[in-house]
Formats: sequence, C-alpha cells, structure tokens
Amino acid sequence: MKKINHIGVAVNSLDDSIEIFKKVLNVNPSKREIVDSEGVETVFFNLGESKIELISSFSKENTISKYLSKKSEGIHHICIEVDNIESEMKRVINSGIRVLNDNPKLGADNKKICFLHPKDTCGVLIELSQEINQ
Amino acid sequence: MKKINHIGVAVNSLDDSIEIFKKVLNVNPSKREIVDSEGVETVFFNLGESKIELISSFSKENTISKYLSKKSEGIHHICIEVDNIESEMKRVINSGIRVLNDNPKLGADNKKICFLHPKDTCGVLIELSQEINQ
Repeated sequence: MKKINHIGVAVNSLDDSIEIFKKVLNVNPSKREIVDSEGVETVFFNLGESKIELISSFSKENTISKYLSKKSEGIHHICIEVDNIESEMKRVINSGIRVLNDNPKLGADNKKICFLHPKDTCGVLIELSQEINQ
Repeated sequence: MKKINHIGVAVNSLDDSIEIFKKVLNVNPSKREIVDSEGVETVFFNLGESKIELISSFSKENTISKYLSKKSEGIHHICIEVDNIESEMKRVINSGIRVLNDNPKLGADNKKICFLHPKDTCGVLIELSQEINQ
C-alpha cells in the first residue's frame, strides 16, 4: 500500500462542482475525461501526492447515479495505490475481506483496479489501483 | 493547500475497525488517542504522506454519534493541510463558501482547524488544518 491515489466525490453537476472545488483548493483541475464504458465524466484536482476526483453520471444504470439517487452528493470512494494488485488482492481476500471483482479490471488512466466490499471495510468503498506500465 | 492530511472514518467500534484496517492496509496504527473534549476516540494509520483516521464516539452528543445514528459507518470528512489557516479561511469565505467556525479552533495534535460547510462543498465535510508550531 503506497499512498492515497485519489478521493472520489460523486456530484450532480460536474460544471458546478468544478467551480466549487476551484474555490476550495485554489487550483485549476488537471484533467477532464469522459469514461464511456462507465457512463461517467470525471475531473481531477491535484493535491500533494493525491488527487480529488469529481464524478458525475450521464447514465441511469451505473453505481454513481445509484449512489446519487440513494444518498445525494458526497465522498463515494477512496483509491489506494499499490505496487502489485494481484498480490494485494490475494492478501486482502485471505484476511477475510471480500472484493467486488475477483480479477483486476481495467480502469481509467491505464490502471488495473479492484474494489473491496464496503460491508467488510466499515462502510468505506476502497479501490485498489496499480499503474499498468510499472 | 498542501496535501490531504487525513481521511476521517466514523466507526461503531474502534477495536473492530482497527483489526479491519490492519488487514486492508497491512500496517499497524501509529497512534490511538482519547479526545475528551469531543467525546471521541481516534486512531491513525499512516498511508504515504496522508493518514486514515478512525473515529468512534463515547458520547451521544457529538457530531460522530449523530453521523453514525443517521448514516451508519463510513467516510466522515477529509482534512486538508494548509500553511496559513487564517488566510485560507478568508480566501474561502470571500469566494462564497461558509465555514462552521468563524475563527480557527484548537484541534487534536496541536493544530488549528476549521470546517467548511458541507452544503457548500458538494456534501463533502472538509476540514482545514494548520500545525501550530509552523
């Protein structure tokens, strides 16, 4: 476990929330990206070695739109960067914590990712993430 | 705005959640502390330049117990470290974002802290924090 890669925040309007986080963080976002496969649009703000990710949804069938309709805006997940996702997944699973995908899947930004089951981690949705070009 | 100082997670049982986060993060906590004035007990896990803070409540009258009874366990706030909290508060307030305390208050760990109003920051409770001995 290397560091917090990012904190993901589910928002209703990406444009509105970008203006808010520009005010809070006093910095412009570094990258805006549509992830068609997930039905979401994201933007990142750099903050030290980590990032804040704002995520809005343009589909009704993904986890972000479900989260927003159930809970309203707020912190959706935290992403922890790892060196070797397969070995970390094995270690975590062996300790009794369930994962939401049994094998690493391809995430945005050329990463292999895996989500841990929030019921096993105090209600916190934790994403593990490894850069593929390591 | 320097970095994410910590992510605060509200938990029902500190002992149980410590065991869980030891499994996830593969590390022992660095510090456990009772904050009598707030009616909470906290523990920190180091993760890169940031920390994960687990927070349980032994009082019924604080924000953590209210959060837990209303929402259940999960991410409660994120804390951003700043160099000068007075000037950052002034800047944020001038941009139209409300704060929960008009003047910096004394937090744990010899810090001056201020919370921003989550209704003005996409439902995210953001704490600003400055080390006093800077």
